[in-house]
Amino acid sequence: MIAALAGGVGAARFLRGLVQVVDPADVTVVVNTADDDWFHGLYVCPDLDSVTYTLAGAQNPDTGWGLAGETFATVDALARYGEDTWFRLGDRDLATHLFRTRRLREGATLSEVTAEITAAWGLGPRLLPMTDGRIATRITVAAGELAMQEWFVRERCEPPVLAVRFEGADAAVAAPGVIDAILAADTVLVCPSNPVISIAPILAVDGVRDALVSRRDRVVGVSPIIAGRPVKGPADRLMGPLGIDVSCVGVAREYREFCSTLVIDAGDAARVDEIEALGVRAVTADTLMTDARVAAALARDTLAAVA
Amino acid sequence: MIAALAGGVGAARFLRGLVQVVDPADVTVVVNTADDDWFHGLYVCPDLDSVTYTLAGAQNPDTGWGLAGETFATVDALARYGEDTWFRLGDRDLATHLFRTRRLREGATLSEVTAEITAAWGLGPRLLPMTDGRIATRITVAAGELAMQEWFVRERCEPPVLAVRFEGADAAVAAPGVIDAILAADTVLVCPSNPVISIAPILAVDGVRDALVSRRDRVVGVSPIIAGRPVKGPADRLMGPLGIDVSCVGVAREYREFCSTLVIDAGDAARVDEIEALGVRAVTADTLMTDARVAAALARDTLAAVA
Repeated sequence: MIAALAGGVGAARFLRGLVQVVDPADVTVVVNTADDDWFHGLYVCPDLDSVTYTLAGAQNPDTGWGLAGETFATVDALARYGEDTWFRLGDRDLATHLFRTRRLREGATLSEVTAEITAAWGLGPRLLPMTDGRIATRITVAAGELAMQEWFVRERCEPPVLAVRFEGADAAVAAPGVIDAILAADTVLVCPSNPVISIAPILAVDGVRDALVSRRDRVVGVSPIIAGRPVKGPADRLMGPLGIDVSCVGVAREYREFCSTLVIDAGDAARVDEIEALGVRAVTADTLMTDARVAAALARDTLAAVA
Repeated sequence: MIAALAGGVGAARFLRGLVQVVDPADVTVVVNTADDDWFHGLYVCPDLDSVTYTLAGAQNPDTGWGLAGETFATVDALARYGEDTWFRLGDRDLATHLFRTRRLREGATLSEVTAEITAAWGLGPRLLPMTDGRIATRITVAAGELAMQEWFVRERCEPPVLAVRFEGADAAVAAPGVIDAILAADTVLVCPSNPVISIAPILAVDGVRDALVSRRDRVVGVSPIIAGRPVKGPADRLMGPLGIDVSCVGVAREYREFCSTLVIDAGDAARVDEIEALGVRAVTADTLMTDARVAAALARDTLAAVA
């Protein structure tokens, strides 16, 4: 059994490789939900959907999020009513948010709806939201505090980050199966996701960090930072201001308490000694997932690193 | 000042003619909301939207409802989640339902949201829902009771109608401005709409029928039945089973308590005496609104009938 902690696009690509090299039914993915938010009265879960669509092979290959061949008639029409339309929800993607929101309003938990959505897409792995409660990433910039998507999408990650907090983390409990999946897994993977806004919120859920620490020997991470830069997304604009070195070494320092092994890019081989000095074993591989074949090889290398 | 009672497509076409011959700002339209229903967690108001889109010149000219050039990506995608998709909500139309539903959930009344929606479309006339409460047309067929859209759209008006009732009519009160508009109008128009499921629900709202009766001399209707057949829609399949003659005479009999004058099609001139024997003055005109020019002429003739 394999458990994986996942954010959005990077994790989705890695998981698509993983299911090529292991039985998908053996995989449980614990997905960040701190980016979730309400748009036009609909509850949107960007990371759950990115992972779902990518595992179904339906994602937009250019953006990594959203659906391939998507149209945007509804969101464009919402502008007539004065609605903010900077969060570009596609027409087919809207079906997911409509279904999810209706089921949540009927009283279903996010876990239950997620199971229904992933079944509808015929996914092999089990996807779990990190919590059925509400944790929301809040980003402080000079002008004040922003919701994650406001900073990320509306402001294009431009305002310098002063602080990050996970609103609601004190009260939220892990979704059913999350802690069990970590404790029961032969291997726990920390996908190549943003350490600050994808992995850290999962760690902030009560019990998750402790469960990972207890399985440290079996926890292997993949660095999302290659040659001092994120492959995709704003990790550098979050790690730097929070005092985290924007490098695979910085990632190792963040994860060392619960992660025995870190897979880093072959191009970062010169940093192996620095990482191992932190008490984390460093293994090199090709971590730039330019296609599904590379992703599968990376998944294989990652599993082998703790075999 | 003019007040008009309106259902969907027929009323919308008539009103589009009306605003060509009077100052749109002098017109208040009281719209049937007993066809409203929830689809995919969104509150849909078919008649309000048909009137709005038609007055804005944005309606689908082929169907009379929905928007011109519409696409259906979202509703098609909802099928993946096992949702019923027989009610074909268009992608741009969905923006209206998303906006309305969000505002209603925020606590706005349907009247308030309707004012916002019609302002967004730049409409001249004032549109009022008949009530801010909930009245729902229920249609009894052999298999049981159906919601209006189930019978009308899903079942294509095929199951014979045994009974019609307006659920919630006992408790609903007229929306702000409805009674005042009727009492203050120089002329009250009963648009060429289905007497059973478009006009009767408005009459079922407490105070509306009494207000109309008190203004009977100034109330003029337009028969939606020409030569014993409805121009559009299932009026014949509702009137007949409920014992209402499917003719302009049957309409006159239904309306005579509150309507002094009925405009009927020139082709029905032979029925004038029967109508006048009911105490309703009959005026003939070209009532088949094949284009906006005919609609404008009909509106002019209708106003002249009680001038």
